[in-house]
Amino acid sequence: MANVIKGKEVAKFFLSNRPKKNLEANLSKPKLAIIRVGEDESEKSYERSVLTKLVPLGIDCESKVMDVNVSQDVFNQTFDEINRDPSIHGILLLKPVPKTLSLDHVIQTIDPLKDVDCIGAVNMARIYQEGPKGFIPCTAKAVMKIIEFEQIDLKGKSVVMVGFGMVIGRPLTLLLVEAGSTVTICNEFTKDLKKESSRADVLIVATGVKHLISASHVKKDAAVIDVGINVADDGRIVGDVDFDEVVNKAGSITPVPGGVGTVTTYVLAEHVMEAYELQNKLK
Amino acid sequence: MANVIKGKEVAKFFLSNRPKKNLEANLSKPKLAIIRVGEDESEKSYERSVLTKLVPLGIDCESKVMDVNVSQDVFNQTFDEINRDPSIHGILLLKPVPKTLSLDHVIQTIDPLKDVDCIGAVNMARIYQEGPKGFIPCTAKAVMKIIEFEQIDLKGKSVVMVGFGMVIGRPLTLLLVEAGSTVTICNEFTKDLKKESSRADVLIVATGVKHLISASHVKKDAAVIDVGINVADDGRIVGDVDFDEVVNKAGSITPVPGGVGTVTTYVLAEHVMEAYELQNKLK
Repeated sequence: MANVIKGKEVAKFFLSNRPKKNLEANLSKPKLAIIRVGEDESEKSYERSVLTKLVPLGIDCESKVMDVNVSQDVFNQTFDEINRDPSIHGILLLKPVPKTLSLDHVIQTIDPLKDVDCIGAVNMARIYQEGPKGFIPCTAKAVMKIIEFEQIDLKGKSVVMVGFGMVIGRPLTLLLVEAGSTVTICNEFTKDLKKESSRADVLIVATGVKHLISASHVKKDAAVIDVGINVADDGRIVGDVDFDEVVNKAGSITPVPGGVGTVTTYVLAEHVMEAYELQNKLK
Repeated sequence: MANVIKGKEVAKFFLSNRPKKNLEANLSKPKLAIIRVGEDESEKSYERSVLTKLVPLGIDCESKVMDVNVSQDVFNQTFDEINRDPSIHGILLLKPVPKTLSLDHVIQTIDPLKDVDCIGAVNMARIYQEGPKGFIPCTAKAVMKIIEFEQIDLKGKSVVMVGFGMVIGRPLTLLLVEAGSTVTICNEFTKDLKKESSRADVLIVATGVKHLISASHVKKDAAVIDVGINVADDGRIVGDVDFDEVVNKAGSITPVPGGVGTVTTYVLAEHVMEAYELQNKLK
């Protein structure tokens, strides 16, 4: 039976090991601006969970909500004000935004030091390039934290990534290859997914397809990291991995809920604190 | 015996199929600025081959040579002048530059429309992101052209990439996965390279290790694309693939020299023409 990796324990471990910086008494608190356009329920639910977790850690959160029909000009101007506001240290844009809006201006102009979830071109280019990284997407960082917590040495390991989106597949591929892994990326055109996925020492799944991965997709004792969040027919939240089956074959596995998602919100908090420290040049 | 893919034929094919644009008589010719710092022999040799191939295609080339000890300020100022000069449509920076120089300013400020070899953050971020691309590195584009010329349908194909640099491995991984391939990236820590590489329908090698790939690394009838350029003990230029061995097993193979490199220079020419057309808004 696999070791079940509890997101809360991972978050607690890294939070308690975070180096303390010298805060000056006259400094304001770290502050995150959450930008939301429209009233999408899943965005609002994520927003609530961010508030619930970040505020107790001493982070101010301010929601900037725009109407779903906001014009491109007003959206860009509102963004510019937030981006320039020295009292705001981190910016979280809830996505997707309405299809009528282009994010080009945001991508090109967001201050890299405030771009705590890596939506801007500068931080994206830093992931893509060899060398030091800026902020990486919180979910990708959460997966790396879980790997670190599990003390998996990535060098020479075979990692299979199922899915290749902007938040997981793309950044993690680059980070994992830089860490020395042999990475295989699968997508909906992959001819024999079981054959590919069952070669993995570490299997990372981010497809949005409920229970895509069964026990027959997994090598015995592999580490299985499930980034999927889906609603089952009975209303339960389930992952892309059939947990009840795979838990009997994998060496370790993240549950859904309570796995990657929990660590992600902690990473967001950590990024806001780092952004605050960088902007205040704390050492 | 494999079909030997001749770079010249690929280049000729795409050049003759290039759509003609309506040039106005009063327009100046397309112009490429080549920036070189120092007197590195291999950079000078590449510069000569660019001149030899581009000038007959009606492209003006201007070399801007700086002393190996140029200061960061003078380097940046010289670059700014070239970047702003409306008579220059494309910029090729010969690399590597001396270790004393930082390319941060160039990466952040190069005009994306002039960045014909994709060294700037904007074009890099466009490769990294889903959606339309800007200029991609000429060598990576050359590999894509060869795949197109060979009429290989990438969807569902197993592609193995050996090497993960900025010019080949990184951009091609993103382009190939977007095209529907299942991509495996190998590096120096890969435990069993033969096992990985012999699964490939398309094997792309860019490591700088002479004759790393023997016949036993290759699946029968695979397409083998060799991006390596190495000097053998007898002074000949050879690739990362042992051509004489692999030619008897592969379905198709690019030779070195006369393969990818030849197509690359043609792609550079095509990019300068595209840059010229974009800057003159030709249709």
